[in-house]
Amino acid sequence: MLPLHVDSRGPMLSARLAAAGVGGAVVTSAVNRRWLTGFTGSAGMLVVSAETGSSMVLVTDGRYVEQATRETVAAKADVVVVERRSQAELRAAVAAHMASIAGRNARWALETSDITLSEFDQLQAACGAVDLDFDRSRIDDASAIFSDLRRTKSPAEVERIALAARIADVALGEIASSIVAGVIEAEIRDVLEAAMRRHGADDVSFATIVAAGDNAALPHHQPSSREVRAGEAVVIDFGALVEGYHSDMTRTFVVGGPGADEMLERHAVVRASCEAGVARVAPGVVASEVDAACRRVLAVAGLEHELTHGVGHGVGLQIHEAPWVNARSQDVLRPGDVVTVEPGAYRVGFGGARVEELLLVTDTGHLVLSNSPKEPTCPPFPPTTSRTE
Amino acid sequence: MLPLHVDSRGPMLSARLAAAGVGGAVVTSAVNRRWLTGFTGSAGMLVVSAETGSSMVLVTDGRYVEQATRETVAAKADVVVVERRSQAELRAAVAAHMASIAGRNARWALETSDITLSEFDQLQAACGAVDLDFDRSRIDDASAIFSDLRRTKSPAEVERIALAARIADVALGEIASSIVAGVIEAEIRDVLEAAMRRHGADDVSFATIVAAGDNAALPHHQPSSREVRAGEAVVIDFGALVEGYHSDMTRTFVVGGPGADEMLERHAVVRASCEAGVARVAPGVVASEVDAACRRVLAVAGLEHELTHGVGHGVGLQIHEAPWVNARSQDVLRPGDVVTVEPGAYRVGFGGARVEELLLVTDTGHLVLSNSPKEPTCPPFPPTTSRTE
Repeated sequence: MLPLHVDSRGPMLSARLAAAGVGGAVVTSAVNRRWLTGFTGSAGMLVVSAETGSSMVLVTDGRYVEQATRETVAAKADVVVVERRSQAELRAAVAAHMASIAGRNARWALETSDITLSEFDQLQAACGAVDLDFDRSRIDDASAIFSDLRRTKSPAEVERIALAARIADVALGEIASSIVAGVIEAEIRDVLEAAMRRHGADDVSFATIVAAGDNAALPHHQPSSREVRAGEAVVIDFGALVEGYHSDMTRTFVVGGPGADEMLERHAVVRASCEAGVARVAPGVVASEVDAACRRVLAVAGLEHELTHGVGHGVGLQIHEAPWVNARSQDVLRPGDVVTVEPGAYRVGFGGARVEELLLVTDTGHLVLSNSPKEPTCPPFPPTTSRTE
Repeated sequence: MLPLHVDSRGPMLSARLAAAGVGGAVVTSAVNRRWLTGFTGSAGMLVVSAETGSSMVLVTDGRYVEQATRETVAAKADVVVVERRSQAELRAAVAAHMASIAGRNARWALETSDITLSEFDQLQAACGAVDLDFDRSRIDDASAIFSDLRRTKSPAEVERIALAARIADVALGEIASSIVAGVIEAEIRDVLEAAMRRHGADDVSFATIVAAGDNAALPHHQPSSREVRAGEAVVIDFGALVEGYHSDMTRTFVVGGPGADEMLERHAVVRASCEAGVARVAPGVVASEVDAACRRVLAVAGLEHELTHGVGHGVGLQIHEAPWVNARSQDVLRPGDVVTVEPGAYRVGFGGARVEELLLVTDTGHLVLSNSPKEPTCPPFPPTTSRTE
């Protein structure tokens, strides 16, 4: 695979910060710290100046210094790693560096949806100690800048997401024959997750959803000890994690038996809905149009009111990130976006179906990264050979 | 098992809030919301008045209303569940209820280490709209009240933690024979986690640690594709989750082969260190004395500098909570505390060992909830029978 180099990201952020009129940003979230520097540890604060060409400064504690140095060098990040022993010393070092790159009245960008009230108080106090005026009124939210920058995946990022999607495909293919009447939801989850790990997933992408029968009417059902019964649909929504990058895919299987025909009809409508949404995915398209395309197909079958969530979201270092694909989204799709299209139809007390694809937006249209068959039946895999002796 | 009733908790919190001189608390964290009401959903805000005898108010959105109603009734919580469609309407309802229970100049308690800066801004704006002065200077931190209240586990809570610990014991016993040269760390993790789920765990307690050879020198190593080799130590730190309650245990195994003797010596010292700490656990003891007891045993063997972390922490709805067991902790142990004692000795580039027990502090001393053998060898389990034919 291509190396995950981040050297272009710090300068891109600096340019955005300069355009926003702030002196710099203090980055507190693990995901944006990782995206900017390659450092995967859970503790540390990163200071980024609005001035292009200046190194970022990452302050972390003794547990992480060796790892941070190794990872940021491997990622080619232009960052100086500084060690401090206590949280108070860490904040003091951050404030001192802030004071060195902007005046006492400068505005600053923070991830206001990440930093807690007490962390902000403590950073404010540390800034006060070096005569920086870090008042709430001088803080801008950096969240929109980050979610916009992180949307556009590099080829190295796409490789990881595509590999995660392939691992999910292979794992589902291996275990699909075990989706039969009598098996319990949690067992399907266990064998699926074990198969993903065996095929190289670092972890699961998120808590695997396996929902049978009436549980399939709950979009976020957690696998239970409920048995799969004949004639029921089983919704499986899952993914793999590769070097921090997620995949996401949903398939619905229908187990043969009384009532299966009704579930198969519902599945066919939902699958067509997904395919209609996928067909709309291209650069320049407003994301709400993808949502609308999915709903139009459901409406023909009278199922539009059974889709109770937006049809998709971006995927990357986070399982849910920009762009957002729903009826209100004004996000315009562009090359490098990785998004899901996942309509469903749910009737409480009865059951449900969902079909989800993972796509890369390309210069000319899209590439589907999830490649499992969408058929609702569960063919034994690998194919069994029937021998006539 | 005993039902998990929470009816005494709201009034306990109200009394603490009254003593702190605040009008009430707005609870934003999922864990404290669950502890107070039994509601396990991920969204919603809870308002608690300082006035004893007044019902709590839980505002949540449509996805969660049915679940919240069912769960809070089952838990016998004195709470009114209110539904609002958008986050803005939700905050407005919270502010309106706040205005109904305290005057415009009242002080309020918040979990300042949970609420983000943007959530605080938005709640402040909603309060302003109903003429409540919700300025930062009028906010107290509720975190210490919650961590103190949650320390004392009820018999129903102890039952869940003890069951989680028993599941972990049974699972480790089942898979211990697979800890041999040639197996990879991630495989041990997979079979151990699958065994816990098979025996009734709702989930794992935290990301299972399996660390072999030089990886065992890293206290928080994540399982990799590294093979276990002859003569090495393998540290396994793991737990099960039962109805939201965690268990936590560490065992270190030494695989036979060249170098094993040195690892066995290290293991014996660490085990003795753990047992010395466990022996000190009793009501009235300052937690730092437990830490000191562990370190004294390591010091005799010249390994004191190899213990780079505090020796324990409380366990409950969170895997790490009060009381804290380390050299600086002034927490005084009391009946109902559930704590770990987990000294280790780590030498980078060489290896390490850690032994961890999970204990309940009782009226007269303690009860050990983790019951796996501490022997460092891996006897086949269940015992193999050797047949002579």
